[in-house]
Amino acid sequence: MNNPLFERVALIGIGLIGSSLARVLRRDCPDTHIVACARRAETLEAVHRLGIADETTDDPAKAARGADLVVVATPLSAYEGIGNRIAPVLDEGAIVTDVGSVKGAAIEALLPTLPDRVHFVPGHPVAGTEHSGPESGFAELFRDRWCILTPLPDTDPDALARVRALWELAGMRVATMAPDHHDKVLAVTSHLPHLIAYTIVGTATELGEDLQSEVVAYSAGGFRDFTRIAASDPVMWRDIFLANREAVLELLQRFSEDLTALQRAIRRGEGDKLHDWFTRTRAIRRSVIEARQA
Amino acid sequence: MNNPLFERVALIGIGLIGSSLARVLRRDCPDTHIVACARRAETLEAVHRLGIADETTDDPAKAARGADLVVVATPLSAYEGIGNRIAPVLDEGAIVTDVGSVKGAAIEALLPTLPDRVHFVPGHPVAGTEHSGPESGFAELFRDRWCILTPLPDTDPDALARVRALWELAGMRVATMAPDHHDKVLAVTSHLPHLIAYTIVGTATELGEDLQSEVVAYSAGGFRDFTRIAASDPVMWRDIFLANREAVLELLQRFSEDLTALQRAIRRGEGDKLHDWFTRTRAIRRSVIEARQA
Repeated sequence: MNNPLFERVALIGIGLIGSSLARVLRRDCPDTHIVACARRAETLEAVHRLGIADETTDDPAKAARGADLVVVATPLSAYEGIGNRIAPVLDEGAIVTDVGSVKGAAIEALLPTLPDRVHFVPGHPVAGTEHSGPESGFAELFRDRWCILTPLPDTDPDALARVRALWELAGMRVATMAPDHHDKVLAVTSHLPHLIAYTIVGTATELGEDLQSEVVAYSAGGFRDFTRIAASDPVMWRDIFLANREAVLELLQRFSEDLTALQRAIRRGEGDKLHDWFTRTRAIRRSVIEARQA
Repeated sequence: MNNPLFERVALIGIGLIGSSLARVLRRDCPDTHIVACARRAETLEAVHRLGIADETTDDPAKAARGADLVVVATPLSAYEGIGNRIAPVLDEGAIVTDVGSVKGAAIEALLPTLPDRVHFVPGHPVAGTEHSGPESGFAELFRDRWCILTPLPDTDPDALARVRALWELAGMRVATMAPDHHDKVLAVTSHLPHLIAYTIVGTATELGEDLQSEVVAYSAGGFRDFTRIAASDPVMWRDIFLANREAVLELLQRFSEDLTALQRAIRRGEGDKLHDWFTRTRAIRRSVIEARQA
């Protein structure tokens, strides 16, 4: 490319996702000027040390001024404040996108703050690890994963295409869907699994200290996978559950009914019911492997 | 070693665990004669093809005759029948061990069938993958994992030491504990996590076909880890839940209470409660990593 995809990118929030995207831009768009914005001085010092931005600031407005792309990559509860801070300084035609895990709430928080002269393209790169902070990022995080964009009815097609191009550069496959549909799908694939993992690991911490150290020692039998998920960022996940409350609670209701049915089968010694259930779930794993998401 | 640890080892059941142990013996004890026993002809053919046994049979008695070590490595529901088949042919001083995930039930099924002239050392190598069958085994499966032996009050110390040496040869760290204590610890670290994973994957399969294919596509957000666990062998897991019914049901009760508390916090928008909970669970992950079980 002679012209970079974007001239000046403001990354508001430079944790796992923001810093991974910075690394992608560094690698593939060396001419793009990257501004990293974070609230905490330690975070900005880490960004300096890592050399993944040209400029750092704790002021979203300073970061966004003159940017042709602003990526909001903070926990959802910070969105509205950020929108209010950056709105007055945004250039005509600037693109604002985000990486939040709940698109309904992301749109609700950001859209009313943004002026008509900018383009808003809500997005969600479905990728992550249990680690957080700028040190935990890496350019390959996005490789072969899906990015879901949830454009609004009046989203500018050109702005949408440029955001799509950015995530494709990162190695992602890009899909578009309606925000509320996204939130239902993610409630199943991500939000409920995290809630369950947080619950079960919490239950284990209440078992008394003796048993707890044994639980850690013998965690290879399945528990350790839950501890990994339950090590995800507490603020980000608090925000997700509050922001996607309805879809999560509805799904939780179904889950509880199913768990009660299995509990009943165990209590009554109904081995056939258990066997049937466990055989059905095995088939799903094959689909996941075939979809190259394993 | 000049003398092999065991002269003739009968592996009754040659799935993931049995075939991995066969590979360890092949590697480290080339003079040991290995007999593999399985019910299904396809399984025995696979063992032949893999060259991991010197002899195959579908008759447990034929396998156990003349063996100085018999390893029972089938689902728990087959134990009693196997015990009855092998008891009459076992040599004086032969050692019988097993790899079952519920020690109370394993002892209850095998002990009454075994004659006084043999030594019974109940055991559980805490290692596994979601795959089953002899093709899925590999010698390194056990490396750095724990093996829990649950000797009885009158278990021969020498027999215990030899079974311990076998698992140490496989690279395992070996611990001993009382059978009922083992069953409580494993209910937390393995049985409840599997039950929860089976439940959540099952819940997802009930969502209708359209949503289901999207759930598979976007499974990288956490769901895919559950699909892996929920792909474990259905017969083995049916048996585990029925055999460890009491400990699993008791724990499930605690889990349900905790889940209800989190559900309530989400419904009422109590972000602080969620944040506190999610911060506590993060600490456990650090312990798992420090214990080198991650």
